[in-house]
Amino acid sequence: MTWHRKHLLDIESLSASEIMTVLDTARAFKAVGTRAIKKVPALRGKTVVNLFVEPSTRTRISFELAEQRLSADIINFSAEASSLKKGETLKDTARNLEALNADMIVMRHSASGAPHFLARFLRASVVNAGDGAHEHPTQALLDTFTVLEKKGKVAGLNVTILGDILYSRVARSNIWALTKLGAKVTLCGPSTLVPRVFEEMGCRVTYDVEEAIREADIINLLRIQHERQRKTMFPGIGEYASLFGLSKARLARTKPDALIMHPGPINRGVEIDSEIADCGRSVILDQVTNGLAVRMAVLFLLNGGKGPQEIAI
Amino acid sequence: MTWHRKHLLDIESLSASEIMTVLDTARAFKAVGTRAIKKVPALRGKTVVNLFVEPSTRTRISFELAEQRLSADIINFSAEASSLKKGETLKDTARNLEALNADMIVMRHSASGAPHFLARFLRASVVNAGDGAHEHPTQALLDTFTVLEKKGKVAGLNVTILGDILYSRVARSNIWALTKLGAKVTLCGPSTLVPRVFEEMGCRVTYDVEEAIREADIINLLRIQHERQRKTMFPGIGEYASLFGLSKARLARTKPDALIMHPGPINRGVEIDSEIADCGRSVILDQVTNGLAVRMAVLFLLNGGKGPQEIAI
Amino acid sequence: MTWHRKHLLDIESLSASEIMTVLDTARAFKAVGTRAIKKVPALRGKTVVNLFVEPSTRTRISFELAEQRLSADIINFSAEASSLKKGETLKDTARNLEALNADMIVMRHSASGAPHFLARFLRASVVNAGDGAHEHPTQALLDTFTVLEKKGKVAGLNVTILGDILYSRVARSNIWALTKLGAKVTLCGPSTLVPRVFEEMGCRVTYDVEEAIREADIINLLRIQHERQRKTMFPGIGEYASLFGLSKARLARTKPDALIMHPGPINRGVEIDSEIADCGRSVILDQVTNGLAVRMAVLFLLNGGKGPQEIAI
Repeated sequence: MTWHRKHLLDIESLSASEIMTVLDTARAFKAVGTRAIKKVPALRGKTVVNLFVEPSTRTRISFELAEQRLSADIINFSAEASSLKKGETLKDTARNLEALNADMIVMRHSASGAPHFLARFLRASVVNAGDGAHEHPTQALLDTFTVLEKKGKVAGLNVTILGDILYSRVARSNIWALTKLGAKVTLCGPSTLVPRVFEEMGCRVTYDVEEAIREADIINLLRIQHERQRKTMFPGIGEYASLFGLSKARLARTKPDALIMHPGPINRGVEIDSEIADCGRSVILDQVTNGLAVRMAVLFLLNGGKGPQEIAI
Repeated sequence: MTWHRKHLLDIESLSASEIMTVLDTARAFKAVGTRAIKKVPALRGKTVVNLFVEPSTRTRISFELAEQRLSADIINFSAEASSLKKGETLKDTARNLEALNADMIVMRHSASGAPHFLARFLRASVVNAGDGAHEHPTQALLDTFTVLEKKGKVAGLNVTILGDILYSRVARSNIWALTKLGAKVTLCGPSTLVPRVFEEMGCRVTYDVEEAIREADIINLLRIQHERQRKTMFPGIGEYASLFGLSKARLARTKPDALIMHPGPINRGVEIDSEIADCGRSVILDQVTNGLAVRMAVLFLLNGGKGPQEIAI
Repeated sequence: MTWHRKHLLDIESLSASEIMTVLDTARAFKAVGTRAIKKVPALRGKTVVNLFVEPSTRTRISFELAEQRLSADIINFSAEASSLKKGETLKDTARNLEALNADMIVMRHSASGAPHFLARFLRASVVNAGDGAHEHPTQALLDTFTVLEKKGKVAGLNVTILGDILYSRVARSNIWALTKLGAKVTLCGPSTLVPRVFEEMGCRVTYDVEEAIREADIINLLRIQHERQRKTMFPGIGEYASLFGLSKARLARTKPDALIMHPGPINRGVEIDSEIADCGRSVILDQVTNGLAVRMAVLFLLNGGKGPQEIAI
């Protein structure tokens, strides 16, 4: 399928074949990362602004390196250093960046819908790099890419997402991507953090972790944000680890080829046993590598690329 | 006219024909911003240091993008992260940067005259990106460029600068540039912030805002720095907005083709009504776009470029 | 000698001929800094991560500019902005950077041995940019390069290192490099900061500053870190200046061709008289210039370069 979108705002509005176009394009870009010269001229002379109003390290670095490997000119703009502090509105900030002939704005913001808001009046392409508790589309695309790469398919797989689902944009984007491609998604975690309303997105909700992981082909562990722990909804780190953490004992009761995923950064000993994070069934670092390829693909397509057939490698 | 200066420290010491050389060169560079590949090799292999001892977002980003589009190598050096905090003098910091074979130093500093001080002992070119309450030459050049672009001339125009003139390097540099090119400059604002001494620079000073804007071809609104409001000299935000803010009612009493300028970031509802900022007579975003072209021109000329005739586009 | 190491972790484990290979390669790169286009394509399409877990301005800028001049793609990763704050281990951070296909990691860390730790499990090359009180190998290489450039030899020279030796990684790396190349090293400073145990590294220790500098060919003044002054071990700034500072009176009692070095940033009036810092015998700014050439050489060699014969300039 030929790509024709200008923005990447969410997974919800993408079709299965659009998702596949991104993944196919990412596969071509992944090969770039293994070459002696890890660089292509696709975005030479284009300006990409990384507008991170909410702090981020790994997502920002992944995007920035993707932009460098596409030969773009890059402006990093963080909230701390910004005019936003002087009372300028987000709209004015974005318009000013566009007036510098920015071609693309990669945006993280604590408010759900902020990238959609920008996209309505900018000529530049907008990439959602995480908006509040809403969506984190490139994370879901890289997760899905990793599933497809390791398992050869997505349709029919049992994927269990374990942890704090309620406020997780990662979970939300993953649910959209996985269900669109035909996977069966199970959500599990403390009942306060995994409300039954998610069943309306086509998932199964369970609070029995043993049952949730028993038939899983993929176990995606979400990060417990203990630095901003919500006191009233959360049992405490130690209790979480014992009730929902992936221990060696629990891993032994999963399918022998079940893969372990985690968007990082991991809390060893909390949501995952330290040894499991480093074992052969963990694809956590593959996710990082694939994130770079997926983000190169997204930037390439939004810049007018049609699909993988256009990448001469 | 052929350019021959090594530094850009202020507008005061430039001749009208030097100003025109910058503006003509900027016009050639503005075309670069609309091409598919917004990049020229003019500064390839040159090192530009952005030495921002006073915080800045938009000016630093504008310079940084100008440098990227000229293909320079760029070092960003901010006061917060710097040896200046360890007690090193500005002179030592600058000499160390020069010892890294820096070709140009773009400098913002809270002390008037800091760039002139550096220029006296450095072999590298120095660009003043704003020094205390003294000058901000590239802002005046981009403002003048915008006037010329929109009105086809500068000489004979009535330009009104409205706001906090007293401590404004933007006002000071604009007054020099505009009067050298033959415009008639009117200053207006609260009397504590617009002293009569500015008449010595060839301006008219008035405290009657209605009279100041009635015959203006250009109304340049300065930012009210309410985050560092000087209690004793300033009436308060609400009172400022009603006494000097550009409201729709006031705009209706200006010439129908009067243009609205603002160096940004704007305070909607304070110095400018929100709708006016976005109306067809506002050239605020044009100023941002033109700033990039002007800064490319300045860096190009200081690096040994002679004028627009040298830019092969 | 042909280079074959993958990491630069310390000077202690280098042979004299390996040190000379770096210095010879740096000499070739120094010429790049004087050309119109100060750039070579040696690291084009390679990714270098500057992982500075301990703050640094000048070392980071020197590395970053070296990387730019080698045409590398660069990711700057500082502790403040990092996942390390969210509780991620150093090992996980490094593995994540490597998963982005980083080719080299330049690392500064407050813990001695941190780069050695990383090097044990990373496929990427690791460059130690200063680890605790242990080593700062590129500083010693640039200091040695400067000695060799100015004196034409290292063997047989008397080098005096003056100041806070106890916790100085600069001193430690310099002692290794200088003694391996045959210089005679004298250490001097307050007795609490210059323990006799350094004699085991092949140095002479004295607490008599007049005697320490009388026969010196090189006097290397270490920075007094008065911003983190250790109350109980240190006499106070004024007292230090009078007891150990290099005054004009003291300089007059040195050999007429003795050279003054300092790793910077200097405290004028503390460890060095202000006029001496700027006099003809000071090579402090040469050290800065040479640091860039040495770091280009190190990155070039660790990336698979064999030696200076490979640099086509």
